[in-house]
Amino acid sequence: MTPGRPVPPPFAKPIPTMDGPEAGGSRLAAAYGATSPESGLLPLTVARRAPKEDDVEIDIEFCGLCHSDVHTIRGEWSLPAYPLVPGHEIVGRVRRVGPAVDDFAPGDRVGVGCLVDSCRECDSCLEGLEQYCERGNTGTYGSKDARNGDAITQGGYATSVVVDRRYVLRIPEGLDPAAAAPLLCAGITTYSPLRHFDVEEGDSVGVVGLGGLGHMALKIAKAMGAEVTVFTTSESKVDAALELGADRVVLSKDAAAMAAADRSIDVILDTVAVPHDLNPYFRTLRLDGALFQLGLPSEDMPPVRPGNLIRRRLAYAGSLIGGIEETQEMLDFCAEHGVASDIEIIGAEQLNEAYDRMVAGDVKYRFVLDTATLQEPSERADA
Amino acid sequence: MTPGRPVPPPFAKPIPTMDGPEAGGSRLAAAYGATSPESGLLPLTVARRAPKEDDVEIDIEFCGLCHSDVHTIRGEWSLPAYPLVPGHEIVGRVRRVGPAVDDFAPGDRVGVGCLVDSCRECDSCLEGLEQYCERGNTGTYGSKDARNGDAITQGGYATSVVVDRRYVLRIPEGLDPAAAAPLLCAGITTYSPLRHFDVEEGDSVGVVGLGGLGHMALKIAKAMGAEVTVFTTSESKVDAALELGADRVVLSKDAAAMAAADRSIDVILDTVAVPHDLNPYFRTLRLDGALFQLGLPSEDMPPVRPGNLIRRRLAYAGSLIGGIEETQEMLDFCAEHGVASDIEIIGAEQLNEAYDRMVAGDVKYRFVLDTATLQEPSERADA
Repeated sequence: MTPGRPVPPPFAKPIPTMDGPEAGGSRLAAAYGATSPESGLLPLTVARRAPKEDDVEIDIEFCGLCHSDVHTIRGEWSLPAYPLVPGHEIVGRVRRVGPAVDDFAPGDRVGVGCLVDSCRECDSCLEGLEQYCERGNTGTYGSKDARNGDAITQGGYATSVVVDRRYVLRIPEGLDPAAAAPLLCAGITTYSPLRHFDVEEGDSVGVVGLGGLGHMALKIAKAMGAEVTVFTTSESKVDAALELGADRVVLSKDAAAMAAADRSIDVILDTVAVPHDLNPYFRTLRLDGALFQLGLPSEDMPPVRPGNLIRRRLAYAGSLIGGIEETQEMLDFCAEHGVASDIEIIGAEQLNEAYDRMVAGDVKYRFVLDTATLQEPSERADA
Repeated sequence: MTPGRPVPPPFAKPIPTMDGPEAGGSRLAAAYGATSPESGLLPLTVARRAPKEDDVEIDIEFCGLCHSDVHTIRGEWSLPAYPLVPGHEIVGRVRRVGPAVDDFAPGDRVGVGCLVDSCRECDSCLEGLEQYCERGNTGTYGSKDARNGDAITQGGYATSVVVDRRYVLRIPEGLDPAAAAPLLCAGITTYSPLRHFDVEEGDSVGVVGLGGLGHMALKIAKAMGAEVTVFTTSESKVDAALELGADRVVLSKDAAAMAAADRSIDVILDTVAVPHDLNPYFRTLRLDGALFQLGLPSEDMPPVRPGNLIRRRLAYAGSLIGGIEETQEMLDFCAEHGVASDIEIIGAEQLNEAYDRMVAGDVKYRFVLDTATLQEPSERADA
């Protein structure tokens, strides 16, 4: 396939997810992906490997749409390997398991998040921090899959996926499967820094931006017992934030309102993925506070002034999703506290429009693809 | 006094350090200070208040020269109140004490650092973190002194000073008094973040820049049992760093050397006070590492890229000197481990040249003023 050349659907040749001769039992999955930065999303077919010893084959029911899908597919961070099927907020049911798998059985509701493998040997992996694997984790899409012939992983905008049991999460039955999908990325990305900062009952948490990440940060922080302040630039989001449970909403462009929030917050999660000035937020933090930046703008941010950090021993910090054990902990926490994402379910034919709406911030708060709308390979004209 | 108008020495009218009618027993101190951003340092006279209930009157022996003295005196951060006597690395002997003082006696060797008062009531003060006093601490020079009629505090380039006992440090007799002076600012500024980060035997500490702060960071981190890497832009400083005990020196402009230092350091103290790019340093940090920026450039730094923080859950952090209790702990630690500053002792007439040499980085590693060279007011032509 020549990158850059759009392929008219149906796409005849399945994308392999394992190199070399396909083992018996490999299955085709209907999918949507991109063939170039400009192709948009179009129907593709993925050949999923037959489950190996430790593998779990999952029939995907839902897959959330993450802002990083858009950045990646459109080549805004770097040029990925095309053709590429995005999607790392996957929920479905187990179809088959490899012979060594005894912790999952057909019919179980399971999830897959942002990573499907890691070295399993470095200090980070041994500590359950696979996201920080020192040799680089294997992302759910667009990564070289070292244990499968360096084939490029293909994500969850598809009818099925095969993943090693070590990277499969259990979705508690109490969670709505569609609304649980965004927990696998947006949920853990906000849960992990809150836990890392040891947020507890009565702490004061700030959330900058009320989008996919921001609304999860708000719900999870509330469930942890924190008082939550939402910072937003949009007056139109004030009511929405209060409805979602915010204790206070501060219009970040209102200097007087920002000044009134002086020294009132323990930790801020900044979820805005476009460049913006962080300096005004530091004065809202108390001594030893931290601002975690979770969004990853493709352009430089205005510089953080060191005096703002020095004055109150503050930290400008980063945090990357979460490890597998912590992701399971987060799912169980969300089930226990009735936390899930506010979603809009879409069909495959709405994916491109959904991407444009995400970029425009026009979604409350996460799109989730219903994979029942994908055309099964056997139903395609080329079958 | 009109700011901007240089005053020919000797300066006839003493600068009061307490408002209203001077209490009996106030003393004149010979001093050097500035009368405008362009005046340079010239002989001045300061009227020190008579010791009140809790005060300690100190005959100053030595005072270190800090880079922030230069910034302040030259109006580079903001315009201070002139005339102003700088100096916050003060060592001397107790001359008199107020009636409520029983922890210091005449003849004791004592020190005064960067702050001489704070509200004593806020959470920070109650936790011994007076430097972060929520109402603002009272700096040793250039601050309004609320408990003394809002007079502007005058610093340690002087023959004496009067300070509340709560802000007076005990200098262990094992420390050379001149070499101990810089511990009161450069020492505690580097000791505090190392302790805050919980540096212990075998940890790996990075020090960016080998000046007044940097050489103290190196010595203190070594005394804590850490392996120390010095980052410098100057090949000429490599040998000096090794002589001071560095385990490794990395030329920060050598990309290959920086790459070889990948993921080898737990915490970095950046002591460089001019704008420079911090991004290359983050890759030398291990998971959960931190870079404390201790220097405070007067211009913006290049932005820290959030991806560098996210990738390894790093923090870009600030830290401000230390509290009084921790400063005493640091002095005792330095005495126990034989740590002091490498200094060049100067006389008052060399102060202006020393400032120029500090700006040029031409000092190994701290200037210390010998106050015996100050002309006593009684010896002045105007006496």
